[in-house]
Amino acid sequence: MAVYTEVSDDELSSFLASYDLGEALSFKGIAEGVENTNYLVHTEAGPHILTLYEKRVSLEDLPFFLGLMEHLAARGVSCPLPVRDRNGEMLRELSGRPAAIITFLEGLWVRRPSAEHCAALGETLAKLHLAGQDFPMTRANALSVSGWRPLHDSCRGGADSILQGLNAEVSEELSSLEEAWPCDFPQGVIHADLFPDNVFFLGGRVSGVIDFYFACNDMLAYDIAICLNAWCFEPDGSFNITKARALLRAYTALRPFTDEEFEALPVLARGAALRFLLTRIYDWLNTSADALVKPKDPLEYVRKLRFHRNVGSAREYGLGEDEK
Amino acid sequence: MAVYTEVSDDELSSFLASYDLGEALSFKGIAEGVENTNYLVHTEAGPHILTLYEKRVSLEDLPFFLGLMEHLAARGVSCPLPVRDRNGEMLRELSGRPAAIITFLEGLWVRRPSAEHCAALGETLAKLHLAGQDFPMTRANALSVSGWRPLHDSCRGGADSILQGLNAEVSEELSSLEEAWPCDFPQGVIHADLFPDNVFFLGGRVSGVIDFYFACNDMLAYDIAICLNAWCFEPDGSFNITKARALLRAYTALRPFTDEEFEALPVLARGAALRFLLTRIYDWLNTSADALVKPKDPLEYVRKLRFHRNVGSAREYGLGEDEK
Repeated sequence: MAVYTEVSDDELSSFLASYDLGEALSFKGIAEGVENTNYLVHTEAGPHILTLYEKRVSLEDLPFFLGLMEHLAARGVSCPLPVRDRNGEMLRELSGRPAAIITFLEGLWVRRPSAEHCAALGETLAKLHLAGQDFPMTRANALSVSGWRPLHDSCRGGADSILQGLNAEVSEELSSLEEAWPCDFPQGVIHADLFPDNVFFLGGRVSGVIDFYFACNDMLAYDIAICLNAWCFEPDGSFNITKARALLRAYTALRPFTDEEFEALPVLARGAALRFLLTRIYDWLNTSADALVKPKDPLEYVRKLRFHRNVGSAREYGLGEDEK
Repeated sequence: MAVYTEVSDDELSSFLASYDLGEALSFKGIAEGVENTNYLVHTEAGPHILTLYEKRVSLEDLPFFLGLMEHLAARGVSCPLPVRDRNGEMLRELSGRPAAIITFLEGLWVRRPSAEHCAALGETLAKLHLAGQDFPMTRANALSVSGWRPLHDSCRGGADSILQGLNAEVSEELSSLEEAWPCDFPQGVIHADLFPDNVFFLGGRVSGVIDFYFACNDMLAYDIAICLNAWCFEPDGSFNITKARALLRAYTALRPFTDEEFEALPVLARGAALRFLLTRIYDWLNTSADALVKPKDPLEYVRKLRFHRNVGSAREYGLGEDEK
């Protein structure tokens, strides 16, 4: 939620001159996206988003992200379409940053998703997974199981300053998941950050999915596990099985789980909770007080992790064995 | 440049239901305006700005600001028009804050205004002053000469932590201006904060003036003095007399100065510089490190103030005596 890089009217004007979008009619920095600077530009060709990629995004990953959006959009997934300039380039430079213009998607993100929203999400996620199957580029998931221990180590026990005993709890969970983590499940391109603020709705239907800057190749079912964490807990910390069931049913209607994927749901959900817990701990310890973006509360994910550790079987997520 | 108050999709939806604007199609917090929270809302009726008024704006002043925009817009000044709900109300409440919807103005603000931009500004400011002449409400200028000493006193000598000797320099200037400040010049509604980021241009022409939340009744010529400070200095601190001349000529073509106003330009420009220097000193000393908005550099206005103190006569601002 920040504008890290200022773009002047003159810089914008020269930049836009390479596109077939006409002149800029308005230009506003928007409070969207934590990692990058985003402007909403009304051009003569309609509204667009101008993104400047900041330090945390690796330049070499950008062709994957932009190519993926173009690939998915061409297959009917409603996501931002990178606009090519007159030389056919999607990725350019502006104000010293890599920059791209993408199409603007209408819709609002839902602060309190209902079961109906979760069902719509499940269907959308399955379509996204299926549409990504023939995307030719690959990107490893830096935040999958092999990335968790280095992240944990880099926190040097600081987690205890957030919650007494948290460091040991995370260490133990990490060892357990390194042992139990599956590796032979169906793979593909996953979004890997499909929180409610990245899914736009209009009139109860998904109007668009945004922010593909964590997308990577990994187990498809891990993406679902991320969504179970991000969409199916209530503000009071309780797990809403109705929402989870709606999400899982809608997803598996289009891409059924294998038996192994289904049984592994509790482990995958623990892994997803640990992944966000680790980055939240890291950000909590490494965000200076004057940062433009406030770090998110790690404790929310401590509670979610503990919930999943107490789950006895995959059935507790609401999907019957015969429905998977 | 910040979103201080979050508005959920549900809150927005109930809020919009009282207007004839249809449903929200998109909703983004924008990095515009230092004092208030602003969202850009695309509704079925087109783009609008939703403003939530934060603590620094006094509730009792809002009818003046909103009424003024409506008054000016009705007289052909391109400024945001407050949208009335079905009960005829312009000012409502949302997420615990006073809130209003205003029309969206196209255009971009100019980071490096040219003399042509300054001329367009001068014409716009004169039109704004003339259109405001029959506005029936009044609001005293809390940041005119009588407000400067309390502001200075509240800084308790802290200015010296910004620049050694600044406290004495400001004290001296304050005494001098309290003595020399005119009081019988033509009065009216002034914008009082007409910096480049509050004036939108499209194709070299002014497309709109925004942010009337410092507007008040005061000497019209004081508004011009604020613009001389905000528009006519170069980034290296030098005063650009060509820009000042363009601004003054375009303004006086529509509203000529009296002899006294013309001669008082150096004093008015010193006062305007001191007013922004004082609020910048205050903000510098009173903004916590973790604030969402970084304070602006007070030293810029120290340099401007010193420039005006060295001005021998009003002619040095570029306008000939026969042109006023």
